[in-house]
Amino acid sequence: MDGFMQVAFDEAMQGLKEGGIPIGSVLVKAGEVIGRGHNRRVQQGSPIFHAEIDCLQRAGRVGSYEGTVLYSTLMPCYLCAGAVVQFGIKKVVVGESRTFAGARDFMQKHGVSVTDLDLKECRELMEDFIRKHPDLWNEDIGK
Amino acid sequence: MDGFMQVAFDEAMQGLKEGGIPIGSVLVKAGEVIGRGHNRRVQQGSPIFHAEIDCLQRAGRVGSYEGTVLYSTLMPCYLCAGAVVQFGIKKVVVGESRTFAGARDFMQKHGVSVTDLDLKECRELMEDFIRKHPDLWNEDIGK
Repeated sequence: MDGFMQVAFDEAMQGLKEGGIPIGSVLVKAGEVIGRGHNRRVQQGSPIFHAEIDCLQRAGRVGSYEGTVLYSTLMPCYLCAGAVVQFGIKKVVVGESRTFAGARDFMQKHGVSVTDLDLKECRELMEDFIRKHPDLWNEDIGK
Repeated sequence: MDGFMQVAFDEAMQGLKEGGIPIGSVLVKAGEVIGRGHNRRVQQGSPIFHAEIDCLQRAGRVGSYEGTVLYSTLMPCYLCAGAVVQFGIKKVVVGESRTFAGARDFMQKHGVSVTDLDLKECRELMEDFIRKHPDLWNEDIGK
């Protein structure tokens, strides 16, 4: 697994260990991690701390997002894709999109380059979680 | 001013008093306020706590958003509109959209009813803030 995606995957595993939804995210600028986070719906009773939002929050006020790349173990939903588009992040790399198609078209339509690594580890992690916790998963994607 | 928009406006004024960006938001369900918040970029050093996100965070895990209405003193950006679409909020009422056109089309395309009250008080509050703090404003909208 690519080094930055490994960090995102580690975040997802950390979330799982905490009893949360196992999705992780990393923000990279000039080859360095400037933010990392994971979904905290369960841990913080929060509807908005999806992995990517947690990651962006932890990165803080970075000023310009020019040249940043957002990694996520799963294709971003509209909330997180909305942040990508609004903040001007131009490149997104995801672990997989088979368990959730997300807002890929929306990002691409707004000029964001989206790379899907289609990784077995990421897919199996989500498949297993969704099978065990369908209610939590449906709550997280607003179903 | 409509009662719920007045609450959102009060939140915006509270944000201004704190030295922040004066945008407020309220989430209403069955005629009751279930969340209220304001932009906290300055106060919390946060890029993601736009007014609507703060409001949704404070409302907590509400389960279904069916029947909710999101009020905001300003037209939501893509981040906040993304939350609206993903969470299944079907009605948004805004104070104005003259100082920021936001993501109205995106929400409407996804079946969200968007009502723009075009209120002088909301517009003047933003015009005054943008004139005095152009850098903060541009940072907030990712410019």
